[in-house]
Amino acid sequence: MIQTIGFDADDTLWQNEHLYADARRKYDAILRSSASVNGHGIPANLDDIVHEIEVGNLPYYGYGITSFVMSLIETAIRVTDGRITGRELGEIQDIAKQMVAAEVELLDAVEETLADLSADYPLILITKGDLLHQQKKVARSGIEHYFVHVEVVSEKSPESYAQVLRRLDIIPERFVMVGNSMRSDILPVTALGGRGIYVPNDQTWHFENADLPEDAAESVIEANGMREVPALIRRLDSDS
Amino acid sequence: MIQTIGFDADDTLWQNEHLYADARRKYDAILRSSASVNGHGIPANLDDIVHEIEVGNLPYYGYGITSFVMSLIETAIRVTDGRITGRELGEIQDIAKQMVAAEVELLDAVEETLADLSADYPLILITKGDLLHQQKKVARSGIEHYFVHVEVVSEKSPESYAQVLRRLDIIPERFVMVGNSMRSDILPVTALGGRGIYVPNDQTWHFENADLPEDAAESVIEANGMREVPALIRRLDSDS
Repeated sequence: MIQTIGFDADDTLWQNEHLYADARRKYDAILRSSASVNGHGIPANLDDIVHEIEVGNLPYYGYGITSFVMSLIETAIRVTDGRITGRELGEIQDIAKQMVAAEVELLDAVEETLADLSADYPLILITKGDLLHQQKKVARSGIEHYFVHVEVVSEKSPESYAQVLRRLDIIPERFVMVGNSMRSDILPVTALGGRGIYVPNDQTWHFENADLPEDAAESVIEANGMREVPALIRRLDSDS
Repeated sequence: MIQTIGFDADDTLWQNEHLYADARRKYDAILRSSASVNGHGIPANLDDIVHEIEVGNLPYYGYGITSFVMSLIETAIRVTDGRITGRELGEIQDIAKQMVAAEVELLDAVEETLADLSADYPLILITKGDLLHQQKKVARSGIEHYFVHVEVVSEKSPESYAQVLRRLDIIPERFVMVGNSMRSDILPVTALGGRGIYVPNDQTWHFENADLPEDAAESVIEANGMREVPALIRRLDSDS
């Protein structure tokens, strides 16, 4: 019997990754303009350097917009050997505020899925990243009322899920997590004995991808979009 | 009867503000160096501009180190009219990582106060700011085991305290909050009907200061250092 259903937020309930892709396009344009004005090159493997600096900065700044933009600034200074100007770095910094202020756009079938499932199960939202930004997005999303609890964690690990479930008196074996990230939403939950509904999203940050180990395969169902989730959950529940 | 005691963390349990003061000294030195190399001035009211940009950025970046350093970068670009170089801004950015990596230094009498009070009362820690950084500091502080619950909030308002207390089944009238910030630790709690032990710290960020309204004066006791707190709490409890 399923006791509680957890939902991830970014790229599960609402679009998120497109903001990062848009930001990268603006960033690349600023770097190109700096290259032509300040006479420096742009490395062919810029994407790799951005990714390496982003991941290296996770222990310092965590996940989210401010961390991302700090990494873009650091990368710009490094790849231009400090020749990018203060004014251009200011333009990069402005991207952060634009991202924070962006509209929250719900993904397809999210509202009806939450309305449907919340009639039968307590729903909780578990999202990682910047506390302030995640809380603001939840508040602006218009779907906060479907959730009995919202938890922002700094990292989605078996330990952080275990802590949330323990505090809410949820038995891991009776918990199902719905999300787009195999790495953050599915694997830590199956490691605790819970189950996952994996809803892939083609805009997921590649850092969030992971292989599903064979011994976890039985605990995970892949949904082709949020619209399929209610029926999958109810089938899981009637089988258990 | 006191049910639960809450503690603030930054500048209540451990030193924090000195990191910001040190960072400002490094920052001022980088700006002075930039002024002599790049031939720009430094406004006489630099402190006011930093403060104004910091407070203006709170809705975008929240409280904490990353937000502070983003504001220092923004200020540097603005006051130098973009003439500060990428390399110099990189030096400012490095300050963030140094601050994140800094040791957690407990304030005087903190450990014995927590050991003493935790024998008689459940203690909770309520701190605002960056989720990742606050969690890391708690983990490194060596005093996490005195607390039955640790909550990081993005803002200390009557609403955020009410939410924490409701979730933990704590009656506001039976809650006492201990902290160095009149604005964040004391006034929101007295607004809910709780009480405060105000432990001023001469390193408190001036943004955190506030006047104690007359009608709240009865609910607040000022302690001359953490060492006085256990006796004050027990007197409060025996009077109630």
